[in-house]
Order: sequence, then structure tokens, then C-alpha cells
Amino acid sequence: MQDIGRSKRAARAFSLDDVAIMPTRRTRGIETVDVDWRIDAITFEFPLLAAPMDSVMSPATAIAFGELGGLGVLNLEGLWTRYANPQPLLDEMGELGEACTTRRLQEIYSEPIKAELITERLRQIREAGVPVAGALSPQNAQQFADVVERAGLDFFVIRGTAVSAQHVSNAAAPLDLAKFIYELEVPVIVGGCATYQTALHLMRTGAAGVLVGFGGAATSTNAQVIGIEVPMATAISDAAEARRDYLDESGGRYVHVIADGSMGHSGDVVKALACGADAAMLGVPLARATEAPGQGWHWGQEAWHENLPRGRRVPVAQVGTLEEVVLGPSHSPDGTMNLVGALRRALASTGYTEVKAFQRIDLIIH
Amino acid sequence: MQDIGRSKRAARAFSLDDVAIMPTRRTRGIETVDVDWRIDAITFEFPLLAAPMDSVMSPATAIAFGELGGLGVLNLEGLWTRYANPQPLLDEMGELGEACTTRRLQEIYSEPIKAELITERLRQIREAGVPVAGALSPQNAQQFADVVERAGLDFFVIRGTAVSAQHVSNAAAPLDLAKFIYELEVPVIVGGCATYQTALHLMRTGAAGVLVGFGGAATSTNAQVIGIEVPMATAISDAAEARRDYLDESGGRYVHVIADGSMGHSGDVVKALACGADAAMLGVPLARATEAPGQGWHWGQEAWHENLPRGRRVPVAQVGTLEEVVLGPSHSPDGTMNLVGALRRALASTGYTEVKAFQRIDLIIH
Amino acid sequence: MQDIGRSKRAARAFSLDDVAIMPTRRTRGIETVDVDWRIDAITFEFPLLAAPMDSVMSPATAIAFGELGGLGVLNLEGLWTRYANPQPLLDEMGELGEACTTRRLQEIYSEPIKAELITERLRQIREAGVPVAGALSPQNAQQFADVVERAGLDFFVIRGTAVSAQHVSNAAAPLDLAKFIYELEVPVIVGGCATYQTALHLMRTGAAGVLVGFGGAATSTNAQVIGIEVPMATAISDAAEARRDYLDESGGRYVHVIADGSMGHSGDVVKALACGADAAMLGVPLARATEAPGQGWHWGQEAWHENLPRGRRVPVAQVGTLEEVVLGPSHSPDGTMNLVGALRRALASTGYTEVKAFQRIDLIIH
Amino acid sequence: MQDIGRSKRAARAFSLDDVAIMPTRRTRGIETVDVDWRIDAITFEFPLLAAPMDSVMSPATAIAFGELGGLGVLNLEGLWTRYANPQPLLDEMGELGEACTTRRLQEIYSEPIKAELITERLRQIREAGVPVAGALSPQNAQQFADVVERAGLDFFVIRGTAVSAQHVSNAAAPLDLAKFIYELEVPVIVGGCATYQTALHLMRTGAAGVLVGFGGAATSTNAQVIGIEVPMATAISDAAEARRDYLDESGGRYVHVIADGSMGHSGDVVKALACGADAAMLGVPLARATEAPGQGWHWGQEAWHENLPRGRRVPVAQVGTLEEVVLGPSHSPDGTMNLVGALRRALASTGYTEVKAFQRIDLIIH
Repeated sequence: MQDIGRSKRAARAFSLDDVAIMPTRRTRGIETVDVDWRIDAITFEFPLLAAPMDSVMSPATAIAFGELGGLGVLNLEGLWTRYANPQPLLDEMGELGEACTTRRLQEIYSEPIKAELITERLRQIREAGVPVAGALSPQNAQQFADVVERAGLDFFVIRGTAVSAQHVSNAAAPLDLAKFIYELEVPVIVGGCATYQTALHLMRTGAAGVLVGFGGAATSTNAQVIGIEVPMATAISDAAEARRDYLDESGGRYVHVIADGSMGHSGDVVKALACGADAAMLGVPLARATEAPGQGWHWGQEAWHENLPRGRRVPVAQVGTLEEVVLGPSHSPDGTMNLVGALRRALASTGYTEVKAFQRIDLIIH
Repeated sequence: MQDIGRSKRAARAFSLDDVAIMPTRRTRGIETVDVDWRIDAITFEFPLLAAPMDSVMSPATAIAFGELGGLGVLNLEGLWTRYANPQPLLDEMGELGEACTTRRLQEIYSEPIKAELITERLRQIREAGVPVAGALSPQNAQQFADVVERAGLDFFVIRGTAVSAQHVSNAAAPLDLAKFIYELEVPVIVGGCATYQTALHLMRTGAAGVLVGFGGAATSTNAQVIGIEVPMATAISDAAEARRDYLDESGGRYVHVIADGSMGHSGDVVKALACGADAAMLGVPLARATEAPGQGWHWGQEAWHENLPRGRRVPVAQVGTLEEVVLGPSHSPDGTMNLVGALRRALASTGYTEVKAFQRIDLIIH
Repeated sequence: MQDIGRSKRAARAFSLDDVAIMPTRRTRGIETVDVDWRIDAITFEFPLLAAPMDSVMSPATAIAFGELGGLGVLNLEGLWTRYANPQPLLDEMGELGEACTTRRLQEIYSEPIKAELITERLRQIREAGVPVAGALSPQNAQQFADVVERAGLDFFVIRGTAVSAQHVSNAAAPLDLAKFIYELEVPVIVGGCATYQTALHLMRTGAAGVLVGFGGAATSTNAQVIGIEVPMATAISDAAEARRDYLDESGGRYVHVIADGSMGHSGDVVKALACGADAAMLGVPLARATEAPGQGWHWGQEAWHENLPRGRRVPVAQVGTLEEVVLGPSHSPDGTMNLVGALRRALASTGYTEVKAFQRIDLIIH
Repeated sequence: MQDIGRSKRAARAFSLDDVAIMPTRRTRGIETVDVDWRIDAITFEFPLLAAPMDSVMSPATAIAFGELGGLGVLNLEGLWTRYANPQPLLDEMGELGEACTTRRLQEIYSEPIKAELITERLRQIREAGVPVAGALSPQNAQQFADVVERAGLDFFVIRGTAVSAQHVSNAAAPLDLAKFIYELEVPVIVGGCATYQTALHLMRTGAAGVLVGFGGAATSTNAQVIGIEVPMATAISDAAEARRDYLDESGGRYVHVIADGSMGHSGDVVKALACGADAAMLGVPLARATEAPGQGWHWGQEAWHENLPRGRRVPVAQVGTLEEVVLGPSHSPDGTMNLVGALRRALASTGYTEVKAFQRIDLIIH
């Protein structure tokens, strides 16, 4: 803790850029490394989730990402549940490029969400035989919960900029997270959160995983607009401590800590796990795939808020197919391709065989 | 405190950019948040003052800002009290753009201040039915005090780059702030100041509010010219401690701490309040309104000093109407529109219902 | 150690850019300074090695560098041992410039290494009468060790991004460094390593010198791709402590600490020695010579990895002949020419006569 | 002190940019401030020296600077003592602009220094009736000392990049500073130095003033070339402590601490005095005068070193006449004009009447 001034003290918080991993005294052959990720009843081939953002996940890319071995999460409040056929709008946005203003986004997303489209999109993914996950904001979770549950899915994701277990509202019946999760038949992943206390409270609601973050970093302007920022290295490390304490308090319930956002390159994913995350939810790295619906652009849910937008639509370079981006081979030395290979290489270079042990590696501040 | 060298130690001081707010374990519906601000006998709908700068406040924009619910402060030493009709000069400056040199500013502002124009400008604002406030520098406060007081106003603002309660001068009768304020019939807001001691001394003069800052940050070049800088997070936190100590010492007089400058985006206003400020005086954010007299340019009083100018005239993007800038809706995700909405959103996202409690929120250094 | 968060602490690590040398109370005439470097049975006129990178070392430049008084190290896995005549490929790459993609590098380097070319290249250097050194990666060290040893050389360099004495592999017979070095007839220089423990373990294998670093800094993208970084000032200082401890533990075996990479200008070499290095292995500074095979471009072994490239091919300015770059005279004030003169000048300006004592000079952090 | 690594600790050192002055609880009218500077028998109107650099000082500008009230120091090893008429060369360099290479500088300055020109230049300045000062490097001090002393001057300046009282050399008779200064009839100003120990040793040689610095910062590339840097805030503070200790040790001899270089704007001069300097020697701020011989360019003695140049020739904006630069009025808000007015304003704004007391003002680190 340092003095800001005579009436305020503050602790330093660290972003993933502030830290790095140092080589250790051991190395391994990459063939000895295993990065699979088991949450609830499902084992994934790697600990990556695709973020529920319209620039990243369509039903088609959710299926493709699942087939590669990860967990694609569809945004159930985005274009695909507002429009029967959003493709012309995605094409328009792609063609407009920089000229697609915030005002145009606000118009496009003013179209209401349709329950039948939620059902339809989830059905399409389920029929492809991959794990199914859909995301709603806390504001819409109750209204569409039945629809979603009936549609059938493996993970129900409740994702907002800041989600707390103690939301206060004048609304008739604000979301009671613990009750809501208790009554759902499917495991819930919930967040973003940023502190030990919030993470612990979210774990106590019965969630299977908590998202650590505060709006997607690549597109978010929360720092400029409302002064709130979440240095991810610190937030992940705090949530990992909550996981440990809750594990004890609950007599053995392991709630997964999922870093959400602020990871633009594979090295950031590695550092997030080294800070204690079990898995990482990715936006911009997957928006770089040629199949990504964003067509070279990336934006999040905050970009179209009706009276206080807090996100930008940003250009991203299209670097290769989704398969190349996730599994390689890479033809680009900048951490944008072969995300899983990079993770495996990082573990091999530092002598680890699995992510769980890698969470304890020493970091340096630079 | 760190050693600069063997003969000097210094403490680190923090700017608003150095700190940020982290989400807490609570969130709220934005409808439960109240940001009104009561000072002396008047309650404003939000804790924002418009800075007495010619690029920001004309009689017309002071009225408009008051009608929106804030406190507009007219510069009583600027173009509007030097010229019967300054509009042609404002137009010339707008058209000249970058070509409007410091030398031209020095010429324009060499015209003397006219008492009758002070009377006329304040009358115009008063007749509009909004709270009236005008600003003089300490150098001119005595000369025009009678004129100003007779014209009638709600807040008398004494604003200089550095104002102290202990000014030493060879002049015949230097301003005795305590006596001056005691004799005035209207509440006084005075500053800028930057340290605990100065803030405490200014509070003891009987002021209703103290301005914390040292020249407007967006335009000021004091750091380059005279080596003086005021990292605002530290300065506000120090002044807030002075407020607390003076409250005790005075047996209950609450002097408002008003952050003045260095707040270019709504997130900076949020952080200033989180550091302990009661309200914020804004320049550049309001200069971005289409109605602002600066016509896309912004400058402060130090820009036209006759032999040592210490400020620049800087271009600002015009982003929307004054109402959109202050109350929204926003169509820009960069913290330039819907300043009040952003403040309310920040409180809601961190679970606070009012500014006074929000002053105690934890900060991080990043 | 600082808290990253509740579950992680980390120490700050320093790059060479983070530190600097301050003048001391003594100065010397440059004619009183001696920078020669003795390792094993050979004394070099200055403590510089040329890095085994295809943009830096060809047989011809290895000979030229040796004739100037340093130790040139040929990459035995590069173009010169894959192709009988690589010159057309070097020319193609030079002409392509930026257009030479990672994919093209991957193609070029997919050609297998040929044992007879290893023999031929080493013979050519030996016949020129300069000290001979060749480098293999740990992966290839065993396969080609006999060929290399039979070809005859003064130093066998085993160089990888991260080399440990405790490599774990599923391969039939992973490299046992200690056994390997014990059985070789020639002294071995091995690395990179980055920590006290790894350096100590490498010293225990019987190596004559250890390389400190992690991929060449000028071209490496390991930080972005796998999150691993080696702040060199800290790494060198740690390895120097391992040298001291191993000297005691071994009863007097002095293993040389050789900084490898992250030294773009002569000032960086000076700082590396001031941190405790005995010598420096240089890439980009020598790639700036007009004779360098890279023809104005510089790249390392990681740039062509088949499925996870972690290095860039970067342009470098050609500043003068190899002799001018190494021994001067300099006509450029930016630390790119007269590397040895700069080192001598640094010692003279701070009152030292030799590198060994200079390793103890005080540094500052800035 | 922080650990760089296991074998090295280092203290943080601060540049003038790292620190700033905060307003205090007092302010003053500028008319109550006095910045005169008394050294040896002469009182100057302000504590500024013009640096002995060919881009700054010609005999004509030395006279002009003296007439304004400061101390101009002529470089006795520059163009004016190598050429009877250097003006054509200065014109050539001005016209060449960027095209004037280091190699061309090396050629121009290869012309030998001529004793008779030293005599002539000093005579010219003396006849103008202003204080006379000339500078030699330690290398040339002995050879030309007689000539200089016979020519007559008020201050003999011995100025090198690093000057120590304990220079070791193989030369027949290296300069013995203490003996040299003892035998001279005129007061000596000597430096640069950068640490407490060196400053103290230089004070013990009998110097009237010590220069703190290490090559001019605006043009120096010593950091890149030889890894040596002098963060000025720390260096000045250390030298000021040496002044205090030597004052006691010598029973009352006050040796002036003169900051030399790294002060590009008036705010830097203010900070240098706040760190404990008695006066400041300026290069780039005076090279901005229209009369400056550099004609819009600035370079130092290290730029033309024959085999290891360690300085650049850099462009500078010509902002006004020498009088405007030094005494104002200023028409530029960036700290390039009215240097003395800025110094007086800084003292007034913080409530000080004189430089000696101002040396004790609190700084902040930002």
C-alpha cells in the first residue's frame, strides 16, 4: 500500500503486460505436455473458451471451435437472436469499416431479442454434436432462462461488465443469483468479477466457473468513461485465492477461474494461467480468424449501449483459418496463431506437464 | 519518501491517470443512484462546475449549463468584460485555428476590463433564472469586488494558478483573503491550491469551497515553464484531509473540495470524486460542446500572460451539443459525452448510491 | 517481492535499459585499459563472440571476426550446413526485404542439415588460422557431435532458447548434458539460461561457459508468443552469483558467464559486463556490418520454427565494415561502431583497467 | 537499494523529468523576488552560464550574454580558436543541415588549436567590459594554461565529460588538478562530475565551482555508446551534499554547484536549483536564440571525437532574440523564452525571495 495523499492509500495492481515468466531450471519435450481442461462433466482438449461476442461467435464458428476441442459460447443477446438472418448486417458493418459509427451500432442493436431465435440457434449447435454454451447478461437472464434451459445446453453463461452476487435494484424482482443458479439444471459460468470478495461471493452462488475481467480489454473504454479498470494479473491472482479459500470452505467444490479478456496474444493466455487461471475466454485472438463473423472487426456488448456506450469497434488483422489460429501451424511470429501450441510450448520450456501445476510458476515484474 | 540524492528526499505524487477504480463486491441499478450536489443554499443536479474560461463559458453557455442543472462560472476578466461584443474576435480566433499565435492572444487580451460589462454580463445570467457565478483573479478581486457584488451573484469565485492565504507583495494593499471573504455577502469559492497546508489555510479564510489544481491541465505548460506540477490524485486526497481536519477544528463547517482541471474525460471526473472531491470544475470536456464559444479550440488565462505565457491554445473535437455532453445520450465511447450518466454508471457499477460515500472507495495504482 | 495479488508474489527484474553506469571518482587514460579475454587456453583481444546466426556468421565473416581478435561462432544448423551454396538464397532474402515471409523462411530451412557440410565449413575456418567454434541446438547435438568433433574445433557451442541440465523427454535417448560434455574433447559453451539455478546446474555439467539469455532479443517474439522474457540485467547478475558459488563448490573452476543477446548498442555490452558478464555474444551489432551475410536483415533460429515461429526477420542499418563496427574508427555517434573502443572508453571514464574489476562497478536504476 | 539480481544491488536515480515542484502555502509578488548570483568577486544578475559550445557561444554572443547579466563561457578548443574566421564553416554547417555528417564534423575539428587565437578571442570579450570566461578540456588545460592566463580572464573553466581529481594516465605528466588550480591566479570552475565523492574531491582541489553533468544531455549519446548516464536530479542533490560537507570540512569555503546540461526548458532550470544547484550552465536553450552561432543546430564537443563520437548534432527551433530568450518578453508558452522571468515566477509562485532558500523546497516524484 502506498499513500496517494493524506486521505487515501492504494495498492499497486498489475496487468498481464506488467509481468512475465522466466525460464526455470527444467525443460521438457513438448510431447510430454498435456493441456486438457475438465470442467463439470466435460473434458476439453485445451482450456480456451470463445467469447460470446458477435465478432467472434456465430452458430457456425461456435460449432467449428467446439470441433477443434474448445468451448464456444454464443451471445444470446446479439445479432443472431435479434435477427432471423443477421448476415446482411454483418456484411454491411464489414463493408462500412471505420465508417460504421457508434450510432449505427446503437440502431442495429435496438432490435428486440426473440425467444424463438434463442431456441433455434442453440438447437443448431447442439445438433452438431459439440458442447453447447450460451450467454445472457444478468439483466436478461431471468426473462430468457426458461427458453434457454428448454433449448438444452451444457453451460449457461451469465456475463456482464460487472456482476455481483449482491445486486441492488429498484426493479420488481432483481436477479437473485444464488436462487437462480440453484434452480437451473445446467452448470453456470458467471462474471466478470475483479476482486477476491466478488469472486468468493460468486463462487458461493453455486457457479461452476467465474469469469475474471471487466468488459473486453481490446474494445473496452471503461477506463476513459467511468474510471474503472481491472489489471488482470492482480484480478486473476485474487480470484485464484478465492478459489482456494472456497474449496476449503465448501469442503471440496472446485470453482474454475476463467480469465476473460485482456489477452490479445498467446503469451497473454500463458501469463493468465501462470497467475492462477484454469482457463481463458478469448475475444480478439479468435476475431482474427478468417471465418470470424466480424470480418476483420471486433466489438463487444458495451459498444452499443443506448446512452453510454463504453466500447469501440476495432479493426483486427485476419491472420489465418480458425484452425490455424487455435491449433496451428503458425506462419506468423507474433502470438496470433497456434494458440494451443504456444501454451504447450510455454509449459515445455519451463518443465511443466499440466496447467494445474503451471499455475504455481514464479513470475517477475518488469 | 525516497532519496532523490544525499541532500533531498521526496514523496511520490499521483496523477488521476496513475490510479483507477476496481469493481467492488456490490452492484446497483443506475436508477438507485443520486448525484446531486448541495453547496451553501443551493442544490445542483450534479456536482459539476463549468470553468471560467473564454473557450467554455459565455453568458449564453453559462445560462445553458445552469439550465441543465450545473453551475456555470463566467470569467469576469475575459473577452466578455473587455469587449462589448467579443463575438468577432472569437470568430477570428476560430477561423485562424493554429495560426492564432500567442502574440495575437496577448494583443487581444491587452484590452482593459470594463466594470460596466461585468455588471451587464452578470445581470444577463441572473435574469435567466439560473445560479450566477463569476470569477476574478486575486490580482483583480479587490478592484472589482464592489461592482461584482452589486451586480448580484450566488458564488464569487477567486481563481488563480496558485492562490495562497499568505500572499506577500510590495503592492500598496495586497489582498487579505480572510478579510475580503468576511466582508463579502456572497459565498466564495477560491483556488487553485495543491497541498494540505494551502487547502487548510484557504478553508480558514471562510471560503465555501476550495479549488484544487494549478492551471488547467489540458492547456497549461507550467511544468515546462516553471517546473511546477500538481498530480491531481494526490492533491485532491490531501485537500480532502484538510476538509476533514478543518471540519473538526471549525466545529462543523464543511468546505467543499472542488477538483479543477486535469479531467479530460468522464472517467477522470469519477476518479477525482473517488479521491475525495465533492465536485469537479471542467474545462476541456465542455469546450467540446458545439455551443462552446471556443469553436473547437480551448485555452486558459495563462495563455495570454504579457511576458511569460504558460498555456497553449489547443484544438478540441466538437462531439455534440452541450446537453449531450452533459446529460447524454452518448454516441461516442470515449468519455466525452454524457458526463453525468457516466458518473451515475460508475456509482451503480460499484454499488454506491451517492457521491459522499463514493469518496471512500478503494483505488488501485497501475 | 511484491504482491501481484493474494495468491502470487513476484520480484522485479531489470533489463539492461533499466540500469545505467554512473561516473565514479576516478578516471583513466584509455591507453591504460586492457580488455582482453581468456577462456580455456585461448586469449582473445576483446570479450566478444559473434552469435551463430545466419545473418551474422558465414564461414567468411567467422574468419574475419576471428582475425580482428574475437570468437566467431558458426551456426551448424543454418543455411551453410543445409545448402552447398546458400548465397543465392541469402541474395533472394536480401532482395525480397520485407516481402520475405515467415512462410518462405520455413520453406528455406526445411532443407535437411548435411553432415559433410558441417565438416567442410569448420575445415574452412580452421584453415584460416583463427579459433574455431560451431553451434548446435540441444536437439541436434548428439546426432552431429561426432562429425563436429572430428572436424576439429576450439569451442563446441550448444545453444537453444532455453537449455536446462534437466531436460525431460519421451524421446529414446534425450541429451544428458553432463555425460555429453564429459565425453567431448573440446570445451563447451552452453545456454541460454536465465536464472541462478539453471546457470548453476549448467556449470555443474562441466561447461567452460554458459550463455545467459533467451532467444535473441532484437528478433525474438517469445514474450508475445509464450509469455517468457528474460530481463538481462537481472539474469546476468544471477548467473554471476552462480559463477561465484560454483567456483567455491568446485574448488576453483571458473565458468564464464556470457551475455547472449539484448545488446543492440555498445552501451548495452558495457552494462552487461557491469552486471557481471565475462563476455558478450552479439547478433544485431554485427549484422550491421556491410560484410554481414544478412545484407541489412537480421533473424534468428526461432524465426523459422515449423509450427510455432517465435522470431522476426528485422531490418538493420548497415553502418560500416566489420572492422569499423568492431574496432573503429566510428563515424556514427549511436553506439553502432567501434564496439571495442566504446568498451575501453567506458572503463577509462570510470577508472578501471580491466573487465574483471569493472564487474563490480555500481549501477543505478533509472 | 533494490536487488538487480543476486550479485548486484542498485539505487534508483532520478532525472529532472522524474521530479516536480508543488505549490506551497505561500505566494509572493514577483517584484519581491531577487535571483542574482554571486560567485567569487562577481555578482551576476541571474544564475545562468552559457555553455562553451560552438553552437551557443561565439565571442559576440559571449559578450551579448554578459551584457544581459550572465556569464558567457567561450570554448577555447572550438572553431573560434582553430580558425581565424570560422564563419564560413558555421554557414556551411547551417546550410548542410541534416546533411552535415559526423565525418564532416571530424574533418572540420581536426584543424589544430592555435594559441594566438585563444589570446585574441579572450581579448575581444574582455574589451567589451563583460566578465570573461573560457573553457578547456583537462587534456588541453596544461598546454594552454599560460596563454589563457596571460590573456586575462575572470573564470577558468575546465570542462570534460567526466573529470576526476584522481586521473590516472601513462602520459608523461598528467594534469594534477589541485596543483594546477593552486598555481592559477584566476578562480576555476571544473567538471562534469556526477557523484558525491567526485564532487567532494573536485571541491578539495580548490575550485570555485563544480559542474554537475556528463556531456550535454540534448546532444549526448553516452548512454547508447558507453552505458553511462547521469540522472541530474540525483547528481545535483549529491553534489549539494558535498558542498555542505566541504563547507564544514574547509571551515567555510562555499563551492558553487553548477548544473550543466539536461535543461532544455526553463522549468528544468527551476528544478535544478530546487535540487540544490546554485546556478545552471545552459546549452540548448541558448542555441535557440536567433543570434546563436549554430544557426538552428546544436552540438557538443563529443560530436566530433576522432574515433568514438558520442554526441549528435541536433536541430533546434529558433524562437527569438537572445534577449527575449533570457529576459523576455516571451511569446511562446513552452519554456523556451524569458528564462529569467520563469525562474522569478517559480520563486514567486512558491513564496521564495531568493535562490538559496529555494534550494530547500520540497519536490515530488511523479
